[in-house]
This record gives sequence, structure tokens and C-alpha cells, in this order.
Amino acid sequence: MPKVRPPGEAAPCRDGASLSRPGDVDGMVDRPGLKLGLAGWLTGATVVSRGPLMDLQPSSRQRELIARARHLARERFAARADRHDRDAAFPFEDYADLRAEGFLGLCVPERYGGLGADYETYCLVSEQLAQGNASTALTFNMHCLTMLMMGPIADNMAMPPGQRDRHEALRAAKYREVVEDGAFYGQPHSEPVEQGETDTTLAVGGRRFGTTARKVEGGYVVNGRKFFVSLGGAAPYYATPAIRLGDEPWIERTLYLQIPKDAPGVSFPGEWDPMGMRATVSRDMVLDNVFVADDAEVLPPGLFGAMYNAFPHLFLSFSATFLGLMQAAYDDTLAYLTGRMPGAPAPHTEIAAKGPAIAEMLFALEAARALYYRAISEAQVDAPPEAVQRARAAHVTVQRAVVSVTQEAIRVCGGRAFLKRYPFERYARDARAAALMRPWTQELAMQQAWEAALGSGRAER
Amino acid sequence: MPKVRPPGEAAPCRDGASLSRPGDVDGMVDRPGLKLGLAGWLTGATVVSRGPLMDLQPSSRQRELIARARHLARERFAARADRHDRDAAFPFEDYADLRAEGFLGLCVPERYGGLGADYETYCLVSEQLAQGNASTALTFNMHCLTMLMMGPIADNMAMPPGQRDRHEALRAAKYREVVEDGAFYGQPHSEPVEQGETDTTLAVGGRRFGTTARKVEGGYVVNGRKFFVSLGGAAPYYATPAIRLGDEPWIERTLYLQIPKDAPGVSFPGEWDPMGMRATVSRDMVLDNVFVADDAEVLPPGLFGAMYNAFPHLFLSFSATFLGLMQAAYDDTLAYLTGRMPGAPAPHTEIAAKGPAIAEMLFALEAARALYYRAISEAQVDAPPEAVQRARAAHVTVQRAVVSVTQEAIRVCGGRAFLKRYPFERYARDARAAALMRPWTQELAMQQAWEAALGSGRAER
Repeated sequence: MPKVRPPGEAAPCRDGASLSRPGDVDGMVDRPGLKLGLAGWLTGATVVSRGPLMDLQPSSRQRELIARARHLARERFAARADRHDRDAAFPFEDYADLRAEGFLGLCVPERYGGLGADYETYCLVSEQLAQGNASTALTFNMHCLTMLMMGPIADNMAMPPGQRDRHEALRAAKYREVVEDGAFYGQPHSEPVEQGETDTTLAVGGRRFGTTARKVEGGYVVNGRKFFVSLGGAAPYYATPAIRLGDEPWIERTLYLQIPKDAPGVSFPGEWDPMGMRATVSRDMVLDNVFVADDAEVLPPGLFGAMYNAFPHLFLSFSATFLGLMQAAYDDTLAYLTGRMPGAPAPHTEIAAKGPAIAEMLFALEAARALYYRAISEAQVDAPPEAVQRARAAHVTVQRAVVSVTQEAIRVCGGRAFLKRYPFERYARDARAAALMRPWTQELAMQQAWEAALGSGRAER
Repeated sequence: MPKVRPPGEAAPCRDGASLSRPGDVDGMVDRPGLKLGLAGWLTGATVVSRGPLMDLQPSSRQRELIARARHLARERFAARADRHDRDAAFPFEDYADLRAEGFLGLCVPERYGGLGADYETYCLVSEQLAQGNASTALTFNMHCLTMLMMGPIADNMAMPPGQRDRHEALRAAKYREVVEDGAFYGQPHSEPVEQGETDTTLAVGGRRFGTTARKVEGGYVVNGRKFFVSLGGAAPYYATPAIRLGDEPWIERTLYLQIPKDAPGVSFPGEWDPMGMRATVSRDMVLDNVFVADDAEVLPPGLFGAMYNAFPHLFLSFSATFLGLMQAAYDDTLAYLTGRMPGAPAPHTEIAAKGPAIAEMLFALEAARALYYRAISEAQVDAPPEAVQRARAAHVTVQRAVVSVTQEAIRVCGGRAFLKRYPFERYARDARAAALMRPWTQELAMQQAWEAALGSGRAER
């Protein structure tokens, strides 16, 4: 998906030897550390090399968005994170900052007034935001995915022309509310196991549709109960999956509906008192004969189910949050041990004893990040099987590494890091959420991975 | 280093929006799995995306070389590997194939008649060769590194013009022997701890120079004892580090000399009877008053030491062998369990019990590969500190993963995989060598990593 570009956009030039501009060195000076390399080139040394090579560096546009996100996270979110965690309170101030920065439109296409970040770029931004407050990043994920699903992902799904025209009109209105009015979305995707029709049609597994939509004149009447609804009661809108009552094939009846927070029949009952990710405020959501108009369709009927099957990289976006969380734990560990963290003790004398654990944390982080970056760089509709396998591998690798790195951060810093005056214990509590989130919980992603490996024969070499 | 290109070569076009060719879709059709994406594009769907993005896909030229290497490995090397392992015999037949394929010149620049593979491309090829016989790949690494050190890496090192001209003339002659006469090189870099001057100047650590070179009229007289000399007695030449006797600074006295196998005073005494990597035939090498002419310089005096400090990615090339070994173990495990391996039992009924271990192997392999690919994509002279940290992370990650994956391959396949009639036990024995090889043994790479992390303050986010 990120690899398809419309006419007029920069064409991918990988393998594009014909795009060569002899003597052009622009591509070089943008990189650090090439001093001697450049010197060698300027003195006439010859380097034999063939065309553009592999590259996991972000583009300059991505770097700009990354820097803006990092600034928000460090200068704004981080200082508030402890309070929102203790109170299990939604970070409205963080969202005000996101809006002021134009980031509510991060994944809104540019022609609708957004910043036009694609899936890969979004993930890189999310990784940064999470370093300030992982809960904020995890809720923001719901909003951005909604924007991407309506936009570039839907564009890459098969759709009859008439349906595409209607979708274009509907999303234009929804994007406008985001860009002009500061609207944002939750995604109440989860329903309790003990209720609902557990799907066996979605290849990704484990998505339940106990929430029904009855077609009526001019719209739908929706009934159901969601749980773990991040931004519960805090977002103006919820992009809500429901199954239309009817006899057609299951996938065709999947709906994705915009439900306003204040619509009659919508409530967010109960408490939210979890171990971590407390500022996500992921309460239950009850839909009791909620009427929404036909125009509430976030995706055309049937596309939600089809998209889950065709673009499982969607679920990988969660991991950006946990990658950022891991980085924050690692950075703060270094800051603590070298005396740079406010309130940290003077540099340790036991540093040689602690060193190997630092290397382990770094290696776990770098392995998880490289695999994650590779996986998001391959995200596209109908990705080849080996790319989907790598996505599963990336997701599980991040899920595990974030637990081990955040736990090690406390252990290696020592007793004081156990205290809530430092952020380490919050990192460790937040990290525990990673492997629990459907549809790619650790077990389900692993099961799909080995079934694919053994069923499909030789995996990609 | 791979990122610097001379005038006339394809310029890097990352961030090169000005290189856009509106409407050009060439860059797309080269990729698999874009059917719906292309369809969406062709039907007028709009995808918002900004310029070239991150990409770990090999170029078409790299894919071509990868395919040729894979063919050699599977169709030629694999069938001979068991015999060479049992006999601890050098795979001369594999080298005849490498020569016939033009691969002795793989890393010889094109203007000298070689295939012009750069460092990154070489690593991708090596990964494939190792899947046929890891010993062959590990010895071939010595030859290819010699070619790269003389060529593109030297080109990116600072060198006075006069020295560069002389180096150009010397390497032209050496490259010619490789391309025209089928010459290849060992690299006797290791010396026993109990002898020799353990270096404290090389940032990479642990390289010993007990071998001395006395300057005489027209050349050098070399004395010393090397061990673990892969291709011992099998290669026509050995690119041999020695320290020139003198009072100048240590680095300036590092020499890298071409020593012919049959030069008077050269011998390869003793036996070679290790656990694994037996076909590398890494015997001792004794140099007893060996005279070589000045023209034997593989690198200008002083450049060997300088290159070790400036291009530590050099050591990462070993890991390509072990990445390939891991892939072979994984692929053969799938082949065994699904009954596709000749002599394997019918498909197991216990597959659900074995599945999770398959997923673990896949995830370990994919994480190691992504990190390794990222690291080699960043290889350049004077790479930034975070790239060197990633190189260390990649190396250690591969060293460990190859042991766990090859051990798990035996365990999950079961008792029969313990027998030498299958390749699994050879894979596991070969794998044990990875973490032992200097200068980046597991401990040394880890120590450097945490010292850099704690010493240099915040690592790259």
C-alpha cells in the first residue's frame, strides 16, 4: 500500500538506473558519517556499486514528522503521563497538543487538508509519541487507523466504481470534521468471548461480532456491547464494527459505522482500573437501539471484513507504541545509570557488572526495531505470504521484547527504580498490554505463523 | 561505503522527489503482490504517499546474483557438503564452480573484469552460498573481503594521491590474477593469545600481531605463526597482517601482505580436527623468514590498521554465513516435518505439538535477518556510532540465533535428525563457530556495545 503512488507523485526509483543524474551527490550529503567517503569521491577514488541498494532510513519528510512527534512527546506528553496514569484519566491535554500540531490530520490525505502520512510514516510517528505517553499513542492509533482505513487502504481495495464514488463523498465529510473541527475516533473492535458470534471467516482470527445492525429506512439500528474501548467516553466518534442482520455471506455483512459518543442509546458504563495503559480509559461501550444514518458508513458495507483479510499489517500498528515504550525504557535506563536523570543517584560504581544487561537491552531493541521497520516497509494490500509472516514475527518480537526490556530497566537500575517517582514501573505495567491485544495476541500470531509455515511448504528463503 | 557512487553511476534517489517521472510505474511492476494495489491505481484510486520510503528489498542486480548463488549452493555445494565435513577436506570442487560462475571475481570491481559486488551485495550472496555448505561460504568470505578491502573500502579511506596511484597499480595486477588465473585468498588474521603483541590501539579490540615484517631491500622478511587459517594450504595466496619492525606509531606499521602458499619458508603444519566448519581446513600457518617483494602489499602500509578502526562492519560479513546456515536449518526442518525431505518419515501427526517451536525458529530467523540487513545497509567507512552499535547488535543476534535455531531443528524433528544421514547435526556443529570468531566474539562485541552506550550518553533513538 505505501508503495503505490498516483501519477504526479515521486515514482519509486529503486532499480531505476535510468533515473541516474551523473555527478549528482545530493543523495549523499543528506547522510551522516560520509566524510571520508565523500573525501574519497572528491579526490577521484572510484567506488564500484550498482544502483540503489537496501535502505531502512526514513525519508526527509518522515524525519520531519518524526521530529515534530518527538518534540510533542518529550516536551508535552511526558510530564503529564504520571498523573494520567495514576488517575486513569484520558489525556485531553495531549489531544489538544495533537490538534494544535495538526496531527489529528496526520493520516488524512493532503487533498483533504491533512498531513498525508501513509501507514509506514504513521508507524514511525507513533513510535515517537509513545515515548512521551504510551497510552496516548495507543489511543491515537485508533484514530489514525480509522483515517488510513478510510483513505489509502480503502483505495487499494477492490471496489466497484459507484461504491468508490459514494465512499469518496462520505469520507470527504468525515475528514473535514477531523481537520476543521478537531474530531477524532475510537475503535471499539473488541467484544467479550462469552457473547457474540466468533468469526471463522476472517483469516486473521478471533474477531467477534456480537454487535448487530438492523437495516431500517435511511440507516441502521445498532445493538451490542463492546469492551476495552479505548477513548471510552472521550472521543467524539467511534468507528464501530457491526454485523448486518441478513442472509448474505458473512463478509458482505460486515459494517463499519461512525457512532457519535452522544448518540441516544450510547453509554460507557463501568469502571476502568487496569494494571497499565490506564490513560487509554478503555471502558465498556453499550449500544442500545442506536440509530445511525446510512452516511455513517466509515467503509462501504463488506469492506471491513475484506480489509482485515487483505491487509493484516493493520494490526502491526499497535507495535509502534510498544517499540517507543521500549526505547523510552532503554534511554531512561542510560540516563539513570549515568546520573543524567533528575533525581537519579550519582553514576554507579557497579557499571561493569551492569553493562552486559545494557547490551542485552540494546540488542533486543535493535532486533525488534529492524524487524518491525522491515515489516511496515512491506505493508501493502494483498502482501505476499512471506511479508505477512514477517509481520507476525515483528509483532510477537516486539510484544516480548517490550516486556523483557522494561523489566530489565527496573532490575538493572535497582531498588529505587521500583518507586513511582521514576517512570520505569509505569513502562513495565504498560508493556504487559502488548501481547494481549487482538487479533494478533502472541498465541494467535504464533499459531498462524506455524500453520502457514507448515501448510504452505517452504517459506521464503 | 556502498552508498558512495562515482559520476556516471546511478545516483541515490532517496528523497529525490525531483527525480519523479509522473505516471511511471516501472518501480512497481518489479514487486510481487501489488495486484490489487496496481488495480486500485489503474482504476483511478488515489494513494497519498510521500516520496521513496524505507525499503529492505534487494535491487534487481542483487536478486540476479542471489539467484546464481542459490543455484550453486543447492545444485552443487549441498550434495558434497557431507563428504567434505567428514573428511575435513577443502571443497576444491565448490571453488571450481565458483570460478566457472565468475564468482571468484564477485567483489572485483567491474573495470577489472569482476562482477563488481559491493559489501552489501556480497553479504547477500554469501547468505545464499552458506545454504549449500557453510564452510565453503566462510572460506569464500576471506577471499571476498580481500577483494573488497583492496577495492571499494580502500577507495573510501583517506590516502595521499601518490599512495593511491601506487595502490591502483598493485591491485590491478592482483585483480587480474583472480579474474584471469582463478587466484583466491585466505586471510590468516588470527594468532594465539600466548604469543604476539596484543593490540590496544585498534578500537575493535583483540587483534594480535605476533607476526613481524623486517624491511629489506625490495621487500619484507616475514616471521610468525598464525592459527585458524581457513583455506590452510588450499589457497594460492594469503592476505597476511604483519607488524613492521620500527619505531613509528603502531597503526602506521600495520602491513597487509600477499604471501604465496608455496613461498619458501611457508608451511601449514599440524592437523585440523574441529567440531564443525571442518571443510574450512583452518590449519596453522608458519612463516619462517619468508621474503615477499614490496609489490606484495595488498593495502598500502598503515591502511590495514586504519581500516579496522574505520570500517568495523568488515567483521559483520561472517554473519552472512550463519544467517544462511540458519535458513538452511529452518527450511530443512519444514521439509522434514512435511515429508518432503528424501528419507524423512511421513508427515508427523504431532504437528500441533511441534508448531510453536517452528514459529520460534521463524521469528528468530526473521529478527536476525532484518537486523543484519539493516546493519549491512548502513555499512560505510566512518559510520555513525548508532550504525556501529547496530552492527554489533546484528552480529551477536546472529551468533546466538544460529545456535538456537540449529539446535531446535534437531529437537523438533526428533531422534532421527540426530543421525548423520541428515544435515541437521552438521548445521548445529557448524553454528557453534559463529560466536568464537575474532574480533567480534560475543563477549567482545557486547562489551563494546555497553561501553559505547554508557560512555557516549544517549544512544540514538
